[in-house]
Amino acid sequence: MFNNPSWFTEANTSWGTGFSLQIKAKICEEQSPYQKVAIYETTHFGYLMTIDDIIMLSTCDNFLYHEMMSHPVLFTHPNPKNVVIIGGGDCGTLKEVLKHPVDSVVQIDIDEKVTQLAEKYFPELCSSNNDPRATLLFQDGIRWMQEAKTGSIDIIIVDSTDPIGPAEGLFNQAFYEQCYRVLREDGLLVQQSESPLIHQQLLKDMRHAMKKADFTDLLTITFPQPVYPSGWWSATIAGKKQLPLFRKDEATFNQLATKYYQFAIHEAALTPIPMLKDVLGLNNK
Amino acid sequence: MFNNPSWFTEANTSWGTGFSLQIKAKICEEQSPYQKVAIYETTHFGYLMTIDDIIMLSTCDNFLYHEMMSHPVLFTHPNPKNVVIIGGGDCGTLKEVLKHPVDSVVQIDIDEKVTQLAEKYFPELCSSNNDPRATLLFQDGIRWMQEAKTGSIDIIIVDSTDPIGPAEGLFNQAFYEQCYRVLREDGLLVQQSESPLIHQQLLKDMRHAMKKADFTDLLTITFPQPVYPSGWWSATIAGKKQLPLFRKDEATFNQLATKYYQFAIHEAALTPIPMLKDVLGLNNK
Repeated sequence: MFNNPSWFTEANTSWGTGFSLQIKAKICEEQSPYQKVAIYETTHFGYLMTIDDIIMLSTCDNFLYHEMMSHPVLFTHPNPKNVVIIGGGDCGTLKEVLKHPVDSVVQIDIDEKVTQLAEKYFPELCSSNNDPRATLLFQDGIRWMQEAKTGSIDIIIVDSTDPIGPAEGLFNQAFYEQCYRVLREDGLLVQQSESPLIHQQLLKDMRHAMKKADFTDLLTITFPQPVYPSGWWSATIAGKKQLPLFRKDEATFNQLATKYYQFAIHEAALTPIPMLKDVLGLNNK
Repeated sequence: MFNNPSWFTEANTSWGTGFSLQIKAKICEEQSPYQKVAIYETTHFGYLMTIDDIIMLSTCDNFLYHEMMSHPVLFTHPNPKNVVIIGGGDCGTLKEVLKHPVDSVVQIDIDEKVTQLAEKYFPELCSSNNDPRATLLFQDGIRWMQEAKTGSIDIIIVDSTDPIGPAEGLFNQAFYEQCYRVLREDGLLVQQSESPLIHQQLLKDMRHAMKKADFTDLLTITFPQPVYPSGWWSATIAGKKQLPLFRKDEATFNQLATKYYQFAIHEAALTPIPMLKDVLGLNNK
């Protein structure tokens, strides 16, 4: 099934799905100190980046993930000024965050190789990297968080790989406790939380760990994401206070230049769907 | 890539994607006068039905498609009493429609084999087949529509296979003209319209044909659907009059027993996303 050179396939027997993209050529494969990063040219999805043979993003559909990792949480916070992105080396989330009137965004990805290849093959995602409000650091995000000043950040976006390899330490209570400490009173944490259909145990474990780290209110949002397992993905927002769902009026939302995100999407994403209410044991929300 | 017996793979070089489900066993394969229908038992997605080796539905995720093919259009119509489903032989859409206070639902699928296998392997979808309001016919939906009485139906749901094989005649102006004739003044047609990401030409052609058949207002809604190509799917609603988007209050929507659909999903689905506005050349909606 997985040996045809004209297709890149990611399959996993833990949840029984596979996804393939037809490729024209493998452009490069580079081993960093942390992981193997590869770029393919696909027939229909533009460029594809993989890390350790797991699909990270394609030109064609990354807008869904990047918009939904940034705008819902930014429009939930009352006044976000200082934002941190852990991971996010392709710079797509950074670009979306910088569409908001924030004062600073610090992106901390452990692997500079990811950003170097993104600048070359996904330049459209890196077009805001020189924004004076942006700082790109290449170091360990867990350590950065441990050393960050208490109560200094409004929003932390954990835009990481799956919870294996370098990103494993981003999915546990100890890390969330550091995030809680570093966030201001209105602060929000958001983390990609895998597929709502096939990774429900991970989702439950993540939410449990966030609660144990003292986050008061959690909201799991869902959105389509074709190149990730099941094509349906989620992110979980954690607040130190009860989460307000909306900050501004419809017109303000829709002024953003986006392809997917808009006011009605925000409203739907932040209203937990019945299936997730059942799975997560939520009662009144 | 496609020869491993423990995976069922559907791939298509026209849009360069493939999707695979891990299987425990192939349960049966039956050749009807129209097509080859097969059932597999998967490792994680329950049962899988394929027609001519194209994925139709799985136990695990069909609720997304069936809810979104029925509730948005039923809650858009002011007072739907008489509903027709063309195709839909697995009976999942029928079951959702019957959650509404309609007077009659006629389901016309050309192939009785599909319903026979659904009753055996997807009994949860067929639990309303004996509802006195339901009529199951096994005949040609195109011909049925040609012979139906003018102005006799409120909603037509075209829940068909892809536009190849038996369903080809359901994707053109001549068929839409018959639907237009058969619908009452407030009548609505809805048809599955493939992936908003990778089937944009089909979507444009379908909408063009609906307009040529005199439908006044069109709305393309999108939703996740893991087992279909790209995992992101659409349906297009066509109205003889300007489409009202909402009929009832939030509480009424949320009284339905659903897993995905609810008021906020309805609102978001019926608000065209920016990408589709661009692709479809829509200006003010």
